[in-house]
Amino acid sequence: MSAAYDVLCIGNAIVDILARCDEAFLRDNGIVKGGMNLIDSERAELLYARMGPAIEASGGSAGNTAAGVASFGGRAAFFGKVSSDTLGDIYTHDIRAQGVAFDTAPLAGDPPTARSMIFVTPDGERSMNTYLGACVELGPEDVEADKAAGAKVTYFEGYLWDPPRAKEAIRQTAEIAHAAGREVAMTLSDPFCVDRYREEFLGLMRSGTVDIVFANEHELMSLYQTASLDSALDAVRADCRLAAVTRSEHGSIVVAREQTIAVRAIAIDELVDTTGAGDLYAAGFLFGYTSGRPLADCGRLGSLAAGLVIQQIGPRPHKNLREEAEQAGLI
Amino acid sequence: MSAAYDVLCIGNAIVDILARCDEAFLRDNGIVKGGMNLIDSERAELLYARMGPAIEASGGSAGNTAAGVASFGGRAAFFGKVSSDTLGDIYTHDIRAQGVAFDTAPLAGDPPTARSMIFVTPDGERSMNTYLGACVELGPEDVEADKAAGAKVTYFEGYLWDPPRAKEAIRQTAEIAHAAGREVAMTLSDPFCVDRYREEFLGLMRSGTVDIVFANEHELMSLYQTASLDSALDAVRADCRLAAVTRSEHGSIVVAREQTIAVRAIAIDELVDTTGAGDLYAAGFLFGYTSGRPLADCGRLGSLAAGLVIQQIGPRPHKNLREEAEQAGLI
Repeated sequence: MSAAYDVLCIGNAIVDILARCDEAFLRDNGIVKGGMNLIDSERAELLYARMGPAIEASGGSAGNTAAGVASFGGRAAFFGKVSSDTLGDIYTHDIRAQGVAFDTAPLAGDPPTARSMIFVTPDGERSMNTYLGACVELGPEDVEADKAAGAKVTYFEGYLWDPPRAKEAIRQTAEIAHAAGREVAMTLSDPFCVDRYREEFLGLMRSGTVDIVFANEHELMSLYQTASLDSALDAVRADCRLAAVTRSEHGSIVVAREQTIAVRAIAIDELVDTTGAGDLYAAGFLFGYTSGRPLADCGRLGSLAAGLVIQQIGPRPHKNLREEAEQAGLI
Repeated sequence: MSAAYDVLCIGNAIVDILARCDEAFLRDNGIVKGGMNLIDSERAELLYARMGPAIEASGGSAGNTAAGVASFGGRAAFFGKVSSDTLGDIYTHDIRAQGVAFDTAPLAGDPPTARSMIFVTPDGERSMNTYLGACVELGPEDVEADKAAGAKVTYFEGYLWDPPRAKEAIRQTAEIAHAAGREVAMTLSDPFCVDRYREEFLGLMRSGTVDIVFANEHELMSLYQTASLDSALDAVRADCRLAAVTRSEHGSIVVAREQTIAVRAIAIDELVDTTGAGDLYAAGFLFGYTSGRPLADCGRLGSLAAGLVIQQIGPRPHKNLREEAEQAGLI
């Protein structure tokens, strides 16, 4: 059956609030550096009062990936929950304006649209503080069967194990996708997220609910509780058909049953803000994968998109990824 | 009397919504390139629906200047009207987090906080589409006499002639400032704004309500309805004590009664977005001026701040201007 979409992404629909800070700020405020810290509304108010001048940009891991796929010219769709408020309007505008099909019904009232306060240290590392808000209401009633059946790959974020019922939506979507002969991918999202849901994530892979895994090296080593990247790569090769493991400036490693491909990172002028790096790697990879390109080229498209997004503030590339890929000779 | 503030800025309190577009978009949508187009809520909805993915950042001309002065380490205050809504919260957070004293009472309800949709073309030029919202409610009741009397310079934007009662607030603030022996500055804001209020602006200068004028060359030539910059410079020298005229990559010209000083622009790597260039020039100039520096150095500080803000997206510099000025050997 021909596919209506290349990639369906499912994730927490979050507006990012980004500001710079120094290392001491993270320490003084008990923020885990480089991590995704879940916060309640009270702590959100406290941190915002202490935050420097900020900018706002639509974010959320899988939403960023959907936007990236669309920027490459791929056909993307998204499931995620916002509320009917100003940040929800902004989120909805931005993802649709990028060309992503987004039709999840917004909440009528509270809780409000999710926001993440992202503090960027001088080394470019981002530390996220996420108030999930309306995201906690995503559930199986939000699964659009036509999109689940009509997308070559359904991609979801491990972060969706934090809200209570999103995992039911994932399982349902994966069933529909597999019944239609499609593939299902996930990102492990964050080493601490992996720590919270290790057994469930391994179960998704070993049961065949997930065909393709995206992770950075820290997440993968957390998954297998090993200090050895090689051991973790061996383990993931046994547990799923395909994995793409990112390693910051060291590029990425694509692991299939019968082959291992090392892909270089692109050269960058200045590391500004790592927000969205993994999400955009996945976007490039999945755009390549769903357009039938060899795995090495998928990795290179991922490197390109990740390398571009870390040279700007904010999680979605300001540049057109299709044009950039053409200029780089990748498509 | 010692001053509590270096610069008090008064302006429309606006959150910017910034996106890239091509030249055809401006043409097809009847947007005056490089200008500030005033729009109503209906047109705001229409343009937003046609706008690409955007980011949000606090803006507004004089608010940007206040933020810039504070980033240099100057003591800044701001008068401007937001509503009690999400964008108003964002605006209030950002300007206070920059260290600017901002205490104007927000509106309790409609109209909502002002927003400007700013389209940035590939040449870096910004074209603004401003819905004034709550700004129309700024009036003389918002003048805080202690700040008006306690700031070395009160600086306001010509744009304040668009809302109905802000000009009354300006006249009242200028009276208090002058009575306390302070100076009053204004920016001409925009060539079309000058066209709308030419006689009133000239009246402000010739009556001595305004001591210092900031303008770009187009605004100044519009003010005097001449195609000759030299004629315009001669005219402004007669009409006010001090003027700083910006000329994009050609730097600026500082015009005092007895002297004319040409100041270079700084070298830049890439012109990204001109939003805030004039506002930040004024910030650097006024920081230098209120800290007692020679006029040439004031102009150089203006060039530095303007040159930094046009190499990023958004109207307020992400970098700390004091550190940048120190590195450049200007302070």
